[in-house]
Amino acid sequence: MAKGILLVADGLGDRPLKELDGKTPLEAADIPNIDKFARESVCGQLDTIGTGVRAGSDTAHISLLGYDPYVYYTGRGPFEAAGIGMDVKQGDVAFRCNFSTVDDNMVITDRRAGRITEGTDLLAEAVNGMMIDDMQILFKESVAHRGALIIRGANLGADITDTDPHHENAAVLTSRAKDPEDAASARTAYAVNEFVKRSYALLKDHPVNVKRIKEGLHPANIILPRGGGVGPSMAPFAEKYGIKGACVSETGLINGVAKYVGMTIYNTPEATGGYDTDCIAMAKNIVKALETHDFVLCNVKAADVAGHDGNPKGKIEMLAKLDEMIKYLMENTPQDTYITFTADHSTPCNLKDHSGDPVAIAMWGPDVRTDHVTEYTERACALGGLGRIKGSDIMNIMTNLMNVQEKFGA
Amino acid sequence: MAKGILLVADGLGDRPLKELDGKTPLEAADIPNIDKFARESVCGQLDTIGTGVRAGSDTAHISLLGYDPYVYYTGRGPFEAAGIGMDVKQGDVAFRCNFSTVDDNMVITDRRAGRITEGTDLLAEAVNGMMIDDMQILFKESVAHRGALIIRGANLGADITDTDPHHENAAVLTSRAKDPEDAASARTAYAVNEFVKRSYALLKDHPVNVKRIKEGLHPANIILPRGGGVGPSMAPFAEKYGIKGACVSETGLINGVAKYVGMTIYNTPEATGGYDTDCIAMAKNIVKALETHDFVLCNVKAADVAGHDGNPKGKIEMLAKLDEMIKYLMENTPQDTYITFTADHSTPCNLKDHSGDPVAIAMWGPDVRTDHVTEYTERACALGGLGRIKGSDIMNIMTNLMNVQEKFGA
Repeated sequence: MAKGILLVADGLGDRPLKELDGKTPLEAADIPNIDKFARESVCGQLDTIGTGVRAGSDTAHISLLGYDPYVYYTGRGPFEAAGIGMDVKQGDVAFRCNFSTVDDNMVITDRRAGRITEGTDLLAEAVNGMMIDDMQILFKESVAHRGALIIRGANLGADITDTDPHHENAAVLTSRAKDPEDAASARTAYAVNEFVKRSYALLKDHPVNVKRIKEGLHPANIILPRGGGVGPSMAPFAEKYGIKGACVSETGLINGVAKYVGMTIYNTPEATGGYDTDCIAMAKNIVKALETHDFVLCNVKAADVAGHDGNPKGKIEMLAKLDEMIKYLMENTPQDTYITFTADHSTPCNLKDHSGDPVAIAMWGPDVRTDHVTEYTERACALGGLGRIKGSDIMNIMTNLMNVQEKFGA
Repeated sequence: MAKGILLVADGLGDRPLKELDGKTPLEAADIPNIDKFARESVCGQLDTIGTGVRAGSDTAHISLLGYDPYVYYTGRGPFEAAGIGMDVKQGDVAFRCNFSTVDDNMVITDRRAGRITEGTDLLAEAVNGMMIDDMQILFKESVAHRGALIIRGANLGADITDTDPHHENAAVLTSRAKDPEDAASARTAYAVNEFVKRSYALLKDHPVNVKRIKEGLHPANIILPRGGGVGPSMAPFAEKYGIKGACVSETGLINGVAKYVGMTIYNTPEATGGYDTDCIAMAKNIVKALETHDFVLCNVKAADVAGHDGNPKGKIEMLAKLDEMIKYLMENTPQDTYITFTADHSTPCNLKDHSGDPVAIAMWGPDVRTDHVTEYTERACALGGLGRIKGSDIMNIMTNLMNVQEKFGA
């Protein structure tokens, strides 16, 4: 059976930049293998969510996998929680959290608790499993000062305000339902406020913090949830498409999206999520995953980091790594493999944030209708044979090329 | 008033083929008149149902006529039945059927009853009109071993399993509702099982079969329904668009779709549905239909046959006939006629089945905004002025050009 790879260079799309003489990083970069890939592909431009829509990485990937983010996404919490291995169930409300430091007046003195690296597992243990009325609290630590919270119970909503004021020297806020008549979200806000209060009570004198204070470190004496979302009911990828999917990614959030729809997560120890990441190690992991799976989603992060950093040179350097990665995949995947190379959104270096500009896309494999596009850039691909397509089209096109899609009708 | 023709070359779209040096049949064919037509047209690429969606001919034509197949299509039965002149009503469940041969143990020995050609009208008479509890049974024979069944009654569903095992030396299956809680479909499954049982009782000693057995032919001693669908409630074409529509087609299924929405069926005796069909006879029939109708849907079948046969040469030969047909239509239709030439789906010769690849489309007529496309191929049209459009756009564009569409707003 044919294989499929969806390779997403996070935030690769860009705008014409003054420092590149009006070229985008893709136009300025020397990427002979990616250009060869484009010449052998059918190319186009892609709106991952909708035309002109500024996509997040999570919502974009949900859309790229063929799920409507407007239906399934109410916040990144459920995907963050899934990404660190928590079992989010439909109807749960999940949050990403920071361990933070507050003073006796509940004023935040450090949102990241001195970027604590040790002992968060013990702190998590102290709050995990408690009940707030009839609601169950599940908490798990993540990397450094991060963690995820699940509130489990009947009739919960996620349309609430944050407790985290998002800057220091401000008091912890009281969460409220955004719509006063939204009883489900009001119930969640109550649980969140209670959880924050109890986390302070349970953590302020915790041995881990007693030791930190002794060592002159900021204690991780409170947990502040944010980005809450309701755990959606998403059809498993394998059921939706009849193929086995895997994910090779560098970020918990993308792994979380993939995990949420039941894809197998392949971790790549050499993948750092930064400029120093090892793209060939990721490519090898993709090839390995294809031995037992039909389809691999891969996200390489650093082009987005470069965009946020306002660093066109960094994006161009990252493209050199992606160029080698594409070469490796073209040469080392089974003969009947279809590879789609695209981005989840633009992160223009002069904007330093995601934009709604479309991204380049090229689809490569034995039976594609190649076009006249000779280089992989936003502007060249825009005139390609695919035309302008949407993220929700990708899996239809891929499963069609892979010949695993059921016919609709006779 | 302007006239409109929607000419659909069934399964015409294809992929680059090795045996054609990487060209598609459209690219390899010599089609001067179709190319001229494209030069005088606005061209594009078309996803008949959705981008990347593998369409059936029935669902594709439903979509091309501006009806959403995801709303109106639950199976091909209702359209097959309408195509042979049965009056399918909303809520009926209709099936396509085979006369088959079973032995005394209800094991199928011939799914097509020796491809019976005579006497099926008498066999149909024997089963038509019976009641199964409060459900009415309507049955009509079609070509050769084929027929169609309508079950009429309250609260019927069509989400059931087949009685036809789809291969020989297997026992007739018991139909069941796919969802055990779907009472409407369970009722239909019961009626189907009863109909199959009674068909055997009524047909096994029928004079037609007694004679066949004497002659050493397989008796048509059972009827096996499949492809059940609920008769949908579709607005008549004339009401929906305010114009009179006709259909010139070679297949019962397409005639059935057209008939279902109230279009007039023009049969063309010279049209065989095969490579030997007479395209000019069909073109003449279109011109005749336009004398009393505003719009004609025409489907020419054989390009699809060539695709299913894996026969690029056959597709190219068929294109020569279509080339003459287009020439005839350009020269013999009223001055103010708009002609759209497209396909309902791709049937790539190397896949031998329908694919979800987009198809070429060209729209020709006095007021179209012609573009730079100089030849009618998948890849050339993809870069045309229409861009990438959907089947559901066609009637809007046609009725706009024909100037029969009501303005939405002031």
